[in-house]
Amino acid sequence: MTDLLESVLAAIRPADPAATEAARELQSRLTKPAGSLGALEELSIRLAGLAGTCPPPLPAPAAVAVFAGDHGVHAQGVTPWPQEVTAQMVANFVAGGAVVNAFARQVGATVTVVDVGVAADLDPAPGLLIGKIRPGTRDLSVEPALTRDEAVRALGVGIEVADRLIADGARVLLTGDMGIANTTPSAALIAAFTGAGADAVTGRGTGVDDETLARKVLVVRSAVDRLTADDPIGVLAAVGGLEHAAIAGYILAAAARRVPVILDGVIAVSAALVAAALAPDAVIAMIAGHRSAEPGATVALDHLGLEPLVDLGLRLGEGTGALLALPIVGGAVRVLHDVATFDSAGVSEK
Amino acid sequence: MTDLLESVLAAIRPADPAATEAARELQSRLTKPAGSLGALEELSIRLAGLAGTCPPPLPAPAAVAVFAGDHGVHAQGVTPWPQEVTAQMVANFVAGGAVVNAFARQVGATVTVVDVGVAADLDPAPGLLIGKIRPGTRDLSVEPALTRDEAVRALGVGIEVADRLIADGARVLLTGDMGIANTTPSAALIAAFTGAGADAVTGRGTGVDDETLARKVLVVRSAVDRLTADDPIGVLAAVGGLEHAAIAGYILAAAARRVPVILDGVIAVSAALVAAALAPDAVIAMIAGHRSAEPGATVALDHLGLEPLVDLGLRLGEGTGALLALPIVGGAVRVLHDVATFDSAGVSEK
Repeated sequence: MTDLLESVLAAIRPADPAATEAARELQSRLTKPAGSLGALEELSIRLAGLAGTCPPPLPAPAAVAVFAGDHGVHAQGVTPWPQEVTAQMVANFVAGGAVVNAFARQVGATVTVVDVGVAADLDPAPGLLIGKIRPGTRDLSVEPALTRDEAVRALGVGIEVADRLIADGARVLLTGDMGIANTTPSAALIAAFTGAGADAVTGRGTGVDDETLARKVLVVRSAVDRLTADDPIGVLAAVGGLEHAAIAGYILAAAARRVPVILDGVIAVSAALVAAALAPDAVIAMIAGHRSAEPGATVALDHLGLEPLVDLGLRLGEGTGALLALPIVGGAVRVLHDVATFDSAGVSEK
Repeated sequence: MTDLLESVLAAIRPADPAATEAARELQSRLTKPAGSLGALEELSIRLAGLAGTCPPPLPAPAAVAVFAGDHGVHAQGVTPWPQEVTAQMVANFVAGGAVVNAFARQVGATVTVVDVGVAADLDPAPGLLIGKIRPGTRDLSVEPALTRDEAVRALGVGIEVADRLIADGARVLLTGDMGIANTTPSAALIAAFTGAGADAVTGRGTGVDDETLARKVLVVRSAVDRLTADDPIGVLAAVGGLEHAAIAGYILAAAARRVPVILDGVIAVSAALVAAALAPDAVIAMIAGHRSAEPGATVALDHLGLEPLVDLGLRLGEGTGALLALPIVGGAVRVLHDVATFDSAGVSEK
């Protein structure tokens, strides 16, 4: 483990009880019936505990980082999409033409694309960071996808990106990903960390047919059955991806800096399992942006104890589900800043 | 029926088939797996059909109108809140201190408050429109809440507010409401228009106890049992509220002008049943913002064939649930404006 990762893990602490209690008490005095904001009340209270102050900072500016990587397991025919689409979509993100760009414009977030392991040399471009650890993982169905050293270095890329975005002013981070075949390592990570069966966590990804799905399940089952590592980094290296490792580091750095991080879909929540295994208190910084249609996402969210904010059947990745949730998080926090109390507004109580 | 209402009803037409088909075809060419945006794809297609053009206009600027009224049925003890809270909350809205104001700031919407029937004389204020038909309804448990003429005039207030907001530039309208006791007439409207039982549509509103809930169910059942009207305006007059009537008119005007209208919670969806009964094609303009915790809301949404965008246990009203959904609607439409096609971006297909 590097000094960077060790210092991040050491900085992650539980929620602040005084700020948590202050937010709970404030919610009870605001001009609305008790409990009438549903899940947003607990969310605002949790973010006060994370920030250590009530009200917690508004979650703005917002930054999404899209971590891109390729996967050796692509050779097993787990997806009908050619591997070159990863690099092509990176170019699309940088040009501003993907759905993540459209959603980011809609909610006022910046998009940073990070090559942590694309299997092609990418041209430099504004908004593209190169943190390539290797050009794609090895095939997890025949050997460990990464060495431990590679996994730790990819975690470091995620930490550095989070720290840079926070230094540039971001007060909420959102996860994003791109990597053809990356629902397969996601399913393997979820099976490994939750103990759920391969068939319960493996889904159709971009929409594969029955035959491909059956092949995916076999690949995931056999990879998990062959696992010998029993520590989080060993599991990550054996069956994960470079973008999974980087997202785990990004989440850990957000938790260490006490900045909330909105998780996107199944790639993000599988990476969040790695982060939570390394530092259980990191979960207080995590907000589940949405429930991906991929079945493993729900298994992972249940394991983390997180309820998603949006549930609209999305299965695109890129950070799109996290971006849809961002204004909801903003609304939850803004209530603690802006709403009058019964006393201050002169409103009668029941 | 007035000339104004008749002209609005006559202007409501079905979705445009060519624009609908153009949006469906465009969705299939955008750089994302087919269907990967879940419910947002159908939403964008429906809004193209409403607008009669693809892509449809971005839903901005956004305007929420909060229609406020009081209820004679308050005398039956259906809520623990004093009736004066309606007027006090109107003052809170105008001062910018309520949750609807905080959420509107978060998503960039204007808030207009409309007194369509508050049981108090309100001081003039910027952002407050006076369209008072009478100072609260009659007690629906002992007599019709409104005359037919009053109901039609309250519908007209909603039409005029919608037309004014659209004339001022709004390209999406959101419904809002305030009225102590107004979940009781909402439940009665839902029971009357859907045929569901009073116990299935009556809920705890702001959080009433078991005894009050039982009393509410009896009031709703008896009001629906005594109904003699069998036309939408007759039913609205007998068991509805002034804010329900105004919201129904507001929805109808949005549909007539082919501007989408995002419905808030149970008060909005009960008013939407009135609108749909008067003009079935008005449903194409309706977007279900969220699923209120109030059980009647789900009964009404099912009757209308609408799936809500947000489902977070809110039960506050004011327009809060509609405002949470607004950026999601914006994202859905923006995809049709901004996202590259496989062809234009040079991305390989599977």
